[in-house]
Amino acid sequence: MALFDFLRVKKNTASIAKERLRIIVAQERSTRGGPDYLPELQRELLALIKKYVHVDADAVKVDLVKDGEHDVLDISVSLPEREG
Amino acid sequence: MALFDFLRVKKNTASIAKERLRIIVAQERSTRGGPDYLPELQRELLALIKKYVHVDADAVKVDLVKDGEHDVLDISVSLPEREG
Repeated sequence: MALFDFLRVKKNTASIAKERLRIIVAQERSTRGGPDYLPELQRELLALIKKYVHVDADAVKVDLVKDGEHDVLDISVSLPEREG
Repeated sequence: MALFDFLRVKKNTASIAKERLRIIVAQERSTRGGPDYLPELQRELLALIKKYVHVDADAVKVDLVKDGEHDVLDISVSLPEREG
């Protein structure tokens, strides 16, 4: 399934915001163990995004999911509509 | 299609690296125009990732794709195998 189909699927379940920014960080590991840096990376990612777009705290949804060999950080930001 | 199915699909086409980090930034816009910050965000994202994992320049694959209302930055990093 193409990347865009995947992005569109989630859209129907979430509120239909005009503008949205979605960041997915997927760490694929061959062996368990090793540093789990996703929680810290999450904090720095949000700080980085705020340099580019205005982000309301309540407009950010963060999922941190572990599934077998994948650890996935899924950040979804509903952006305020641009004027004009 | 679930997030993990999507992540697994791409794996078959790429070389089977033991450890991999994948970052997808999808910007969904209602109207064209407005600042295109993905190229700059891409540079800062790579710098941020290098704080957490060792990244070989030739192990990074970057796709910047525009499709209708989506602009998508897709960064795939094959990580060196951890010792021990």
